[in-house]
Amino acid sequence: MTKTDPLVLFMPSGKRGRFAVGTSVLDAARTLGVYVESVCGGRATCGRCQVSVQEGHFAKHQITSSNDHISPIGAKEQRYASVRDLPDGRRLSCSAQILGDLVIDVPQDTVVNAQVVRKDSDGRVIERDCAVHMCYVEVEEPDMHKPLGDLDRLVAALAADWKLENLDVDFHLIPQVQKILRQGEWKVTAAIHRDEATDRPRIIALYPGLKNEAYGIACDIGSTTIAMHLSSLLSGRTVASAGTSNPQIRFGEDLMSRVSYVMMNPDGREGMTLAVREALNGLIDRVCAEGNVSRTDILDTVFVGNPIMHHLFLGIDPTELGGAPFALAVSGAIHLKSAEIGLPLNAGTRVYMLPCIAGHVGADAAAATLTEGPHRQDDMMLLVDIGTNAEIVLGNRTRTVAASSPTGPAFEGAEISSGQRAAPGAIERVRIDPLTLEPRVRVIGIEPWSDEPGFAEAAAEVGVTGICGSAIIEVVAEMYLAGIISEDGVVDGAMAERSPRIEQKGRTFSYLLFDGEPRITVTQTDVRAIQLAKAALYAGIKLLMDKQGIDHVDRIGLAGAFGTFIDPKYAMILGLIPDCDLEHVKAVGNAAGTGARMCLLNRGYRREIEETVSRIEKIETALEPKFQEHFVYAMALPNKVDAFPNLARIVTLPERTLSLEDASADNGGGRRRRRNRDT
Amino acid sequence: MTKTDPLVLFMPSGKRGRFAVGTSVLDAARTLGVYVESVCGGRATCGRCQVSVQEGHFAKHQITSSNDHISPIGAKEQRYASVRDLPDGRRLSCSAQILGDLVIDVPQDTVVNAQVVRKDSDGRVIERDCAVHMCYVEVEEPDMHKPLGDLDRLVAALAADWKLENLDVDFHLIPQVQKILRQGEWKVTAAIHRDEATDRPRIIALYPGLKNEAYGIACDIGSTTIAMHLSSLLSGRTVASAGTSNPQIRFGEDLMSRVSYVMMNPDGREGMTLAVREALNGLIDRVCAEGNVSRTDILDTVFVGNPIMHHLFLGIDPTELGGAPFALAVSGAIHLKSAEIGLPLNAGTRVYMLPCIAGHVGADAAAATLTEGPHRQDDMMLLVDIGTNAEIVLGNRTRTVAASSPTGPAFEGAEISSGQRAAPGAIERVRIDPLTLEPRVRVIGIEPWSDEPGFAEAAAEVGVTGICGSAIIEVVAEMYLAGIISEDGVVDGAMAERSPRIEQKGRTFSYLLFDGEPRITVTQTDVRAIQLAKAALYAGIKLLMDKQGIDHVDRIGLAGAFGTFIDPKYAMILGLIPDCDLEHVKAVGNAAGTGARMCLLNRGYRREIEETVSRIEKIETALEPKFQEHFVYAMALPNKVDAFPNLARIVTLPERTLSLEDASADNGGGRRRRRNRDT
Repeated sequence: MTKTDPLVLFMPSGKRGRFAVGTSVLDAARTLGVYVESVCGGRATCGRCQVSVQEGHFAKHQITSSNDHISPIGAKEQRYASVRDLPDGRRLSCSAQILGDLVIDVPQDTVVNAQVVRKDSDGRVIERDCAVHMCYVEVEEPDMHKPLGDLDRLVAALAADWKLENLDVDFHLIPQVQKILRQGEWKVTAAIHRDEATDRPRIIALYPGLKNEAYGIACDIGSTTIAMHLSSLLSGRTVASAGTSNPQIRFGEDLMSRVSYVMMNPDGREGMTLAVREALNGLIDRVCAEGNVSRTDILDTVFVGNPIMHHLFLGIDPTELGGAPFALAVSGAIHLKSAEIGLPLNAGTRVYMLPCIAGHVGADAAAATLTEGPHRQDDMMLLVDIGTNAEIVLGNRTRTVAASSPTGPAFEGAEISSGQRAAPGAIERVRIDPLTLEPRVRVIGIEPWSDEPGFAEAAAEVGVTGICGSAIIEVVAEMYLAGIISEDGVVDGAMAERSPRIEQKGRTFSYLLFDGEPRITVTQTDVRAIQLAKAALYAGIKLLMDKQGIDHVDRIGLAGAFGTFIDPKYAMILGLIPDCDLEHVKAVGNAAGTGARMCLLNRGYRREIEETVSRIEKIETALEPKFQEHFVYAMALPNKVDAFPNLARIVTLPERTLSLEDASADNGGGRRRRRNRDT
Repeated sequence: MTKTDPLVLFMPSGKRGRFAVGTSVLDAARTLGVYVESVCGGRATCGRCQVSVQEGHFAKHQITSSNDHISPIGAKEQRYASVRDLPDGRRLSCSAQILGDLVIDVPQDTVVNAQVVRKDSDGRVIERDCAVHMCYVEVEEPDMHKPLGDLDRLVAALAADWKLENLDVDFHLIPQVQKILRQGEWKVTAAIHRDEATDRPRIIALYPGLKNEAYGIACDIGSTTIAMHLSSLLSGRTVASAGTSNPQIRFGEDLMSRVSYVMMNPDGREGMTLAVREALNGLIDRVCAEGNVSRTDILDTVFVGNPIMHHLFLGIDPTELGGAPFALAVSGAIHLKSAEIGLPLNAGTRVYMLPCIAGHVGADAAAATLTEGPHRQDDMMLLVDIGTNAEIVLGNRTRTVAASSPTGPAFEGAEISSGQRAAPGAIERVRIDPLTLEPRVRVIGIEPWSDEPGFAEAAAEVGVTGICGSAIIEVVAEMYLAGIISEDGVVDGAMAERSPRIEQKGRTFSYLLFDGEPRITVTQTDVRAIQLAKAALYAGIKLLMDKQGIDHVDRIGLAGAFGTFIDPKYAMILGLIPDCDLEHVKAVGNAAGTGARMCLLNRGYRREIEETVSRIEKIETALEPKFQEHFVYAMALPNKVDAFPNLARIVTLPERTLSLEDASADNGGGRRRRRNRDT
């Protein structure tokens, strides 16, 4: 290349370079590391390498017309366009040659390069580079003068056309290779799996003729819900998605009860492994039906889950995770064949599982980290996934730390007198008038708020049955803002004079949130349960902030279903999360599932998260003396010692009155009790 | 190392080097590439690294006593010697340190380094370097401060102690790893498989504590006989051997009838695959019982066979091998797990199959080539394995060529009127008195020759039933030497005047070899069949000699059962093989099985034969116009055109009388007919 060679700019990546006149656009893209798919290997038959071409606008070259910077459409492209659909303005990059300066758009559409993975916070464009590639080749026919085997000639053709050196072959293909080659009249498409740079590439599937499609599955195995996405490995398009509840729930609601089940029942592990695999097979059937895809066309899969889901899915006994030192059987990323774990797809289908961070911080947290990318940012980001155990990751480009906190199931509505799962009839939003102490609530399945017309009729029909997680946060926070509870969480009996909703029950008071059938109240015990849960979470976060030597975080990501439904403001009022500009606190949805999809579509992300996890410092809260102290302080609302300047800017917090000693005497015991139960 | 450092010489390899005082003998051996086994990694517990130490005798050093050149026996060695047996004069090379010049003998015994593989003709010492190594490690216990998984800590320990970088793990071990580590109290032995340099090493089996044994199987799957050897991978000792007839015989005696069976029967391939695998499983049971070895301790296996046996064993349809262009499904070496082909051993057991040379020259010929090593010699060596198809390899260090010749089953006794397999009652040796034309024969199962006392009684008891392969060669050669048949193979009717044994049958004559019940005669048709078979073989050999541009060979190796029983002199009189100094013609026994064992015990041989096969030039006799011409000339005894100077030195050959034209007119048709039938 010289300075007078044409300059070519690829969008949206912005990569650019100079290329000799006559270079194909595909070769230019590959030279620059711009990912452009091609199955047919430059034969203008697969159509996967489509690009949009604009004329160049660079200073040094004189542009005379829009057409002379790219070769005219030739016979091969014309043939493709006549057989298939080639939209106006599109060219096949394998056939279009560079004649002058060009701007090339790599399109983002369903055929070519559907951008399923959103840009992350640092605005990178996410390109595909799947672990499985489809490679079409034309194989030499057998020749008595050169008695290489059919397979060996296939391997030689793949080496020549696709630069696949040192290629290995899945054994199950060997008895089929002759038939497939003859069916395809010596033209076949090989599915090549290559994950790590140190792996030998392998033929994992073989098809007669041009096989212009291949699929993959990304799946997040949650303890409550399993979510699966089916994606095209050739365009990245998500073809279908499906979810189901985890059937292991019948063995135990939360993680520790499932571990207990394994410990108590000789066939407990096997039963739960079978249950989750059956559920996965059911989901595969559903996404295949929805996407009109054959199971055997699914060639790669990525799974994530917390450590116990990870172990049970793989058939590993999770007993060691039930007690200190919480030893994972395996923490690193693992590779296997889907057939090895009873997921019948293609005989060559591979499984990749992301690494686990620690005994209670799983591959799901790793996947969420990959998606949100604290390790790619200068900003200090806190990533929290709240479940029975909260998984907490805090970090930036320089350093990332992680821990889990034993929050218990209170946020999910368990241990709360009127608590329930989010479902029609559950109160999900709460406001309390600080003057009258009267509540307004919003109920799932009912459009108006409780003080709006039509609510009573709808409530009579749907039934108001309890409080779900998001409303539990809100009602305690609103009670605090209204002065019904003090910053130490005591329901103030004196308030009974101001409102009949403050009711005495034995030695404590409760608040009547909804006077229906059933009556929905928030008791002193409920408030205590929430305090314990939030204190555990906050103490874990605070410990990580100590490790980082910081007193505030720049960004907060709330992962998972709970993170999606809670209002960040109320989470902060309660002191669930540290103070932060609310603009920078966001629900990140199923970040774990997104991370799995990223690893499915680009093996570079596998290396990124493996390397990141190896660098993440794992903090075991049980071993940190400071955790206990943070826990005690965090029992107060929003917190005994920390300032909440961002929060104070938008709500008026009650004045602080509590002394450190009160909190310490009151709550230390509760914290210890919970720790013993949940770890 | 400096020139004043002690000099250490290892025997029998003769490798030598200087090492700093205090270096362990094991480290010195490894530095020099001398293979000394060690399972325990230098902990003086496995005893596999035993050596015999002699004082140094090198000029520059003053030797004062026999003991000051090696460190005294320390506590670890004493402990080993007290628990196990450490013969006098033996040291554990991991514990013995070099203090002065030394001669170290690496012993050749059953514990340490049994030399199962004979030295080949170039006199090299064959060292072990198995694809599977046993590596004992002590693994860090789990620690909440460092939440690496149990498997990950095992991998780290193997990397640290055994320099195993980038280690992979068979998935089936992952659900077992925690239990095994705890059973062994964090001391385990990992079986590591690494074959090619480009492969990542893999843990294929894992045992609690020190596992000081591992076995392998080498097996030659012949179309008639299957032979299996069970060897210790840690000492090389052959623990047990067993053989059985190939049960596929019930589907067809020879190779082509088995291919036909597959072509005619929809489940023919499956039935024959199952039959051979069942036979192999039976042999495994037998060698395991004989060697008192558990199937699960067999971790590596090597199989060889001709192309059709190779394909049927692997479950590949051999139909393509039944007709031109005789395309192998796969010609290169292949690797798989034994579980993939229904050989239940250890879940991690590997299978290696040597490459095939061509469509009719299989992995058995490759293994025989490896054993006899024409490619390692300056001498031009001919290697012949005679079956229904003869596999022929001819070469030296510079160049090797190979072909197969369609000899047909005559040498095996088929197509011969009184022919039979080698079994009691079969005539195996024949001498004919050239004056009286009276024969003397020797019969399998009968000690005396037929003219010696006791023969008649024994013959009455055993029964003389036919002629086996070796005697067929001898009787035709002796008939030729006695003048009963001419060099063109015609039984001379004029001889009937000299002996009643020359009998007229229609227009031709035959020779009465044994006047019993049944009468055993050699007919004109029999002689013709042998002529056709030997002419096909000789023509193939001659074609390869043409390719090499040579008119004589330096050495001849006769492989297989037939090669073991025939007398090289008679093979040469008949013109089965070209002229050669009889000193250099030898039966090489089951060279294919030996080659398989070499590959089992040293993966370096796998690379050697793969590289050699890729360089071997394959000659397809059917495509060579000269083959026909050679065939015609080779119908004569011993041959129409070639000189047999070595042979002439030991026997008096009849004068030549035949003209070239006679031979051509007589025999060309037969040759063509045979080719069509057998390929």
